Amino acid sequence: MAKSPEEEHSQKAFGWAARDSSGILSPFRFSRRENADDDVTIKVLFCGVCHSDLHSAKNEWGFTNFPVVPGHEIVGVVTNTGNNVEKFKVGDRVGVGVIVGSCMKCDTCQEDLENYCPQVIYTYNSQHHDHDRTKTYGGYSDMIVVHHRYVLRFPDNLPPDAGAPLLCAGITAYSPMKYYGMTEPGKHLGVAGLGGLGHITVKIGKAFGLKVTVISSSPAKEDEAIKTLGADSFLLSSDPAKLKEAMGSMDYIIDTVSAVHALAPLIGLLKLNGKLVTVGLPDKPLELPIFPLVLGRKLVGGSDIGGMKETQEMLDFCAKHNITSDIELIRMDYINTAMERLAKSDVRYRFVIDVANSLT
Amino acid sequence: MAKSPEEEHSQKAFGWAARDSSGILSPFRFSRRENADDDVTIKVLFCGVCHSDLHSAKNEWGFTNFPVVPGHEIVGVVTNTGNNVEKFKVGDRVGVGVIVGSCMKCDTCQEDLENYCPQVIYTYNSQHHDHDRTKTYGGYSDMIVVHHRYVLRFPDNLPPDAGAPLLCAGITAYSPMKYYGMTEPGKHLGVAGLGGLGHITVKIGKAFGLKVTVISSSPAKEDEAIKTLGADSFLLSSDPAKLKEAMGSMDYIIDTVSAVHALAPLIGLLKLNGKLVTVGLPDKPLELPIFPLVLGRKLVGGSDIGGMKETQEMLDFCAKHNITSDIELIRMDYINTAMERLAKSDVRYRFVIDVANSLT
Repeated sequence: MAKSPEEEHSQKAFGWAARDSSGILSPFRFSRRENADDDVTIKVLFCGVCHSDLHSAKNEWGFTNFPVVPGHEIVGVVTNTGNNVEKFKVGDRVGVGVIVGSCMKCDTCQEDLENYCPQVIYTYNSQHHDHDRTKTYGGYSDMIVVHHRYVLRFPDNLPPDAGAPLLCAGITAYSPMKYYGMTEPGKHLGVAGLGGLGHITVKIGKAFGLKVTVISSSPAKEDEAIKTLGADSFLLSSDPAKLKEAMGSMDYIIDTVSAVHALAPLIGLLKLNGKLVTVGLPDKPLELPIFPLVLGRKLVGGSDIGGMKETQEMLDFCAKHNITSDIELIRMDYINTAMERLAKSDVRYRFVIDVANSLT
Repeated sequence: MAKSPEEEHSQKAFGWAARDSSGILSPFRFSRRENADDDVTIKVLFCGVCHSDLHSAKNEWGFTNFPVVPGHEIVGVVTNTGNNVEKFKVGDRVGVGVIVGSCMKCDTCQEDLENYCPQVIYTYNSQHHDHDRTKTYGGYSDMIVVHHRYVLRFPDNLPPDAGAPLLCAGITAYSPMKYYGMTEPGKHLGVAGLGGLGHITVKIGKAFGLKVTVISSSPAKEDEAIKTLGADSFLLSSDPAKLKEAMGSMDYIIDTVSAVHALAPLIGLLKLNGKLVTVGLPDKPLELPIFPLVLGRKLVGGSDIGGMKETQEMLDFCAKHNITSDIELIRMDYINTAMERLAKSDVRYRFVIDVANSLT
């Protein structure tokens, strides 16, 4: 018989888990593996609340294996290291993002693209097939044990609370801008959707020296986009006249919208050779008009977080440019209310859980 | 009152035109402008029959202005040149492709991308807004007058009949392979659809040193693809088991299919970082699944012919690698039968009209 989550491993752990697709989270006792030679044990300080946490807690993508302890924007402090760990020592401030494992052998891993490894292990709702096939549990918990390859140095001048969301939202925006060549200073970037992901994309775009326009259907966000986040302009996507006026004006668009939506207006906003990269995950196909793609030599691409080397590069870039998330710091027992508010986009722009001070 | 096509200009011309959306072509007397300082007058020898000619003759895209003289794969001989023309002299063998004009001033033209100029003038069914706003008539005619910028040197060792289709189909395949970086020797290219465009794409792919797989729903094409055209393998797209087996095996796909079709299986065939470029023009949007695009960092791009400099480069490349089209040479008065056969894909692989010897 399989052991209970509490008895699987030697290190006792405590967090909050969703038990079914109601998505309601409640206290959960489980365990973590013993710290092995390649491992780092981390006391969790803060954990961001990503929209994926909500999708998973409510099983909206259909592949949640309950109970699930969400959380993949983790900042913490090292409490133990294995014999093979040279990069980190006890007391170091570190980060853990969306992945905690991969095969380390395939071409993809060799090229520092662990995030695309066919054997990738996600931080929660995944399986430790590298160890004992037990389940992974995320950062809504007091501690975590992670192979050092998947642990990031967390720069000293990044605040651990407002910096936590960079570990998912930050790399999700940064990686496609690098890969697809969307960083040429002076070029015009559109950011579709102004949620947790979108607001970080605005800041990273500005740090690369781009002209940034927020594309949103919510007129209330115009002021915030420009005055608070530093965007150069705002385009109300629900206004056909404004959209028409802006046709052919953008070099790049990062599309952070996760709901099913029309691509045609976004493609229309692009110039010749324009690039639209989607980082949201609509669960149904989108309609792709071919004429404007062909006649304007435009492309629509996808991108999914980033590899460990690039994630470290992104953290260092954000530290250098003072990029953090705008957050609302919450206690663990506020999480169910926070999830309800997140579902209504009622947050500016990311909830972060003060795990160490409120998980009791 | 507007002048008749026969009286508009000083040089008498004769060709075959479609008068209405029946698409039936018949003899048509019209005229061409006097050869000006920048112009080259060309006696048409051969003209390829592109699928666009059929779309236009039948007004299938909805923007045909009848009468239309199709034809944009023209090989001919120079009979007159203007004072400013240094590149060509009487007697030279030359080519004319899909475009005969552009603004020459915008950034796009300055970057040798005349094909994407907002003022581009197509070889037929377009308007000479650079001269007198008269209509353009294509290569199903005895002669044509073209500004020298849009005239190509036609390499000596390319046969003028089997080489003609390169002027549209050749550049349509060549340009995206260069622009999207799809030419790394040893990489695996899928070619979706094996018509006029597809068969040239196979040959160009092989010349770049790629492994080429033809993807087609027609089992009859397997032998031709491999034995006649030199493809490395054939994938029957109507066989789900074969498709599944080939998942994740291709680096690039050029999609030449013009009918509305599913993109999901093609995207599934791509490896991580795979690129799918569509050069066909389906008249309705295609369904784009987002999960595989994001999780595999894949892109779907478009491309439309190429600029004049790149078209010349492509002709020289094809001459060097002995790439020509497989053609069926026809007389002008066979064109209506040829169009019917083309609509049924009953041609291996391009009709070319022997204009000079049959237009009487």
